[in-house]
Parts: sequence; structure tokens; C-alpha cells
Amino acid sequence: MRLSTLRIAGGTRAARVDGDTLVLLDYPDVKALLEADGLEAAATATGETVALFDADFAPLIPKPDKTICVGLNYADHIKETGRDKPEAPTYFAKYARALIGAFDDIVLPDPSVSESVDWEAELTVVVGKTLRNAAPEEALAAVAGYTIMSDVSMRDWQFRSSQFLSGKTFEGTTPVGPWMVTADELGNGSGLAIRTEVNGVTKQESNTDQLVFNTATILSDLSTIMTLDVGDIVATGTPGGVGRARNPPEFLLDGDELVTTIEGIGACQNKIVAR
Amino acid sequence: MRLSTLRIAGGTRAARVDGDTLVLLDYPDVKALLEADGLEAAATATGETVALFDADFAPLIPKPDKTICVGLNYADHIKETGRDKPEAPTYFAKYARALIGAFDDIVLPDPSVSESVDWEAELTVVVGKTLRNAAPEEALAAVAGYTIMSDVSMRDWQFRSSQFLSGKTFEGTTPVGPWMVTADELGNGSGLAIRTEVNGVTKQESNTDQLVFNTATILSDLSTIMTLDVGDIVATGTPGGVGRARNPPEFLLDGDELVTTIEGIGACQNKIVAR
Repeated sequence: MRLSTLRIAGGTRAARVDGDTLVLLDYPDVKALLEADGLEAAATATGETVALFDADFAPLIPKPDKTICVGLNYADHIKETGRDKPEAPTYFAKYARALIGAFDDIVLPDPSVSESVDWEAELTVVVGKTLRNAAPEEALAAVAGYTIMSDVSMRDWQFRSSQFLSGKTFEGTTPVGPWMVTADELGNGSGLAIRTEVNGVTKQESNTDQLVFNTATILSDLSTIMTLDVGDIVATGTPGGVGRARNPPEFLLDGDELVTTIEGIGACQNKIVAR
Repeated sequence: MRLSTLRIAGGTRAARVDGDTLVLLDYPDVKALLEADGLEAAATATGETVALFDADFAPLIPKPDKTICVGLNYADHIKETGRDKPEAPTYFAKYARALIGAFDDIVLPDPSVSESVDWEAELTVVVGKTLRNAAPEEALAAVAGYTIMSDVSMRDWQFRSSQFLSGKTFEGTTPVGPWMVTADELGNGSGLAIRTEVNGVTKQESNTDQLVFNTATILSDLSTIMTLDVGDIVATGTPGGVGRARNPPEFLLDGDELVTTIEGIGACQNKIVAR
């Protein structure tokens, strides 16, 4: 099953994807649906429909309690950053104001603020059950589904201090969606081709089986730190091929078309526009 | 004026401190009061009262949209970490599940998880007005008030990767409160003595006039990255004297009493207890 959060007049609504249409569900968003344990009923719910072509996709979870990102989690990306293979996962945060819909424009910062806006395709886990001090198997069983994020990063801000947060949480720059594919269809999220294209040219191409720390390990580890809540999203890291590591470096420019694809899920497609 | 968020039966309530009593206000917490532009009315509101002695203090803002921490912002702390004076502020995040009340126990992680739990006294700013791309003066005018945080840190987790987040957001370990002193009383928050004591022994002692980046600069800079929302809290960094930098290192142990004091505001007092 594929579930989205759509913008409608006056707010948002959760919706089930049925081929070329979306069936609106009785929840404001996918987080509210999961909190109400509404997955099973959502599979057969009927109601008002919206054509896929007309749908306005909000961030899959518009306001998660936590957006957690894993850094340095693909061997080829670790290599291109010049770092050693880590012994423990690297985590950083985004605030909800960074998130946008899967087809929204990414509005560049003013050039005086940043001219190094970069892509990062990431398999992203949606937490479906509260988790605390969970073993990997329990953690995996709590996954509601998987979606796509491009962890768009302002590289100058990311590296102006030792902490990535500044460059990772620029307002309205991180697409998440267009939908969550439930875990019964995608299992542990491994073995999926993952790709970034800019203007039709492939920039990142890998497979989620290359993750250093897998979904179960990451969620288990995070649950040692704190309770994971329903609707939390965890982006599992990006493969090699980011713009900053290219020779010469490449960054997103006004008019570019960014397409972030994961096999079995779909794609985010975002036009880059100047402010 | 001093404003708190108290735990009451069935939830929380904002309250105004009047000497030895607290007057309950018609908002669930200080964030809701600020969002409703309720500061002026709160100054003279009457209602049910609670004795200070009986009050159960929640985190000042139980669920901020953003908890933003500034690292490496006192010259003596920068020196003790062996780093250079930064050219730009260092930011990292905490999730709301880390926050506790000003007098709550800090429950240590299981010793198998961490035995390096450390203190960090921090002047903490509460945002009172939405801010975006604000100049320093506009940013300062948006400060609702100031409170106290001890940015309690699991040093092993903080430094197991390049990113601090893991060690900064352990559940239920970060006291915030007991109240916010409004900006009309504390101005720009500079010139205030700041101190950590453990079991009555002073461990950190400095003054907020030692900040490398001041409140106005920090909020202005953050507002370049994203909109700051009402009720966001920004911890401005800690002075020298943290346990990890002592020789030999010192960490919080079962039975310790942690007292974090800022002149003109008050103190958080937290007992450290084993799980």
C-alpha cells in the first residue's frame, strides 16, 4: 500500500494511492493515521478521490516529532568524503521547517547566503510504533514503511563549523515523499536501486544493500538514546556522487531539475528556482 | 515577570511567579501563552494559585518546535576543548524528549550504555516572535525572555562520531527552567553570572558577557537558515569547567546533586539517580 499526505483547501489529508487516483482518508496526515493505528482500515477505505495528476503532495509527514538523518552510511560516499569507515552511526537532525513536498520547487537561498546547494538521495524510514531500547528485530517490526528524501545540503554552511546542522536544515529545501510504501511490500528496505539525476544526468547511483548500518541496526541504536515516536522519519544516508565531491564540484542552479528515485517506491522531482 | 509551565492533574498550565506563589494562567504552557500574545495580560491576570513549594515544574517549553544549542561559545570552554575560536556559531539540535523540568531527577543511562554524563550550564533564550532573515536588533527585540538549561551530555556518545547529536539528546536528561524571566528585566542577557555546582562544589563559573556570539547575533544568524518560531529555545553555549575537560575527568554519579544557576534568573536543581 502507498500512503501520501496531500495539501487540500484548508489543510492536509492522508490519502491512499490507487493507480492513477488517490483516495482521501479521514486523517489530516500519515502521522495521524499511524497514531490511530489506521493502516489496516486504510487499505480498503473508500471516499473522495483526487487524480494523481492533480494532487498537491505535502511532505509525507509534515511535522514529525523527529527528523533524524544518518551520515556517512554508504561505503562509496564515505570514501569520497575522505573519512574512515565509522564504527557507530553518525546522526544529525533537521527541523520540520526544512521539509517540502515531493514535487515542490526547491527555492535557492540568495547567492550571498549560499551557492553550494547539493543533492543527497536517501532511503527514509517511517516509524510506525513507539520504540525504546529495542533489539534490531523489534525495531524492524516497528517500521511502517519507506519513502524518499533528498537531504539537500548547503555545503558551505554544513562545513563552517564541526556540526552539520546549519547546512542541513535550510527552510523549505528537503523533499520527502511522494508516498510511503508499507513495509509489507518492501521488507527491510534493502536491495533497492537508489539514484539522483540532475537535468537527466545520473549523479548518484547505488543500491540500499550497500548501507553500512541497516534499518534495523539504526532504529535499535536510536532507541537506546530516546523513544522513537510514531511518525518519526529516519533518513538512512546517501551514496557516493554528491556534487561537492565531484571534480570540479557541482551544485544545484536555477532551472535545474532534480530527480531522486528509489526502486519500488518512486521519485521526488523538484525544480530548482532562484529566490 | 517570571513565567513557568507547571504540571497539573491531566496536563500542564502556564503560571506567573508571584513571590512564593504561582498564579495559574489560561494557557497549557508558556509557548501557547506567547503564541496567543498573552504576555501583557499575564502580568495582571488573577486565578487559582499554587504554592511555590508545591509546584511541579515541567520543562519551560515542553515541546518546542526547535531546541537549538550553540556549541563552543565561551572562550574558556573553547580553550579546554583544544579547538580554535570559531568564525561562525556551531549549532546542534536536541529533540523534545530530552527535556525535563528544573527540579526533576536526571536518571542515568544504564552503565553499559554510558558512564560519562556531564554538565553544561547554559543561558537559554525563548523566542517570542517569528523571525526570518532578521538583523541583530530585530532579532533581539523578538526575545521573549531567558531561562536556564543544563545541556547534559553523554560524552562517549557525543564523540563516537563527528556529530554531537547522539550524546546531546538522551531522553529525559536536559533540565530547562524553572521559569523564563522576561526580556524587559534581563535586556540582552549579557553580564549575568553563570555557575554549575555538583554536591555544593563549583565546577563552572563564568559570566554571560564572555559569550563569543551574543543573543542578537545568534538569532539573526539562525533566522538566515530558517524561520524561528514562537517558543523555540536556543541554548547559548557553556563556559569552561565541564567534567570531561577536568583532570582527571569527572562525570555525574548516582546521588549527585546538580545545581545550575544564572544570576537574575534562578537555578535548576537536579538529583542524579541510577536507573
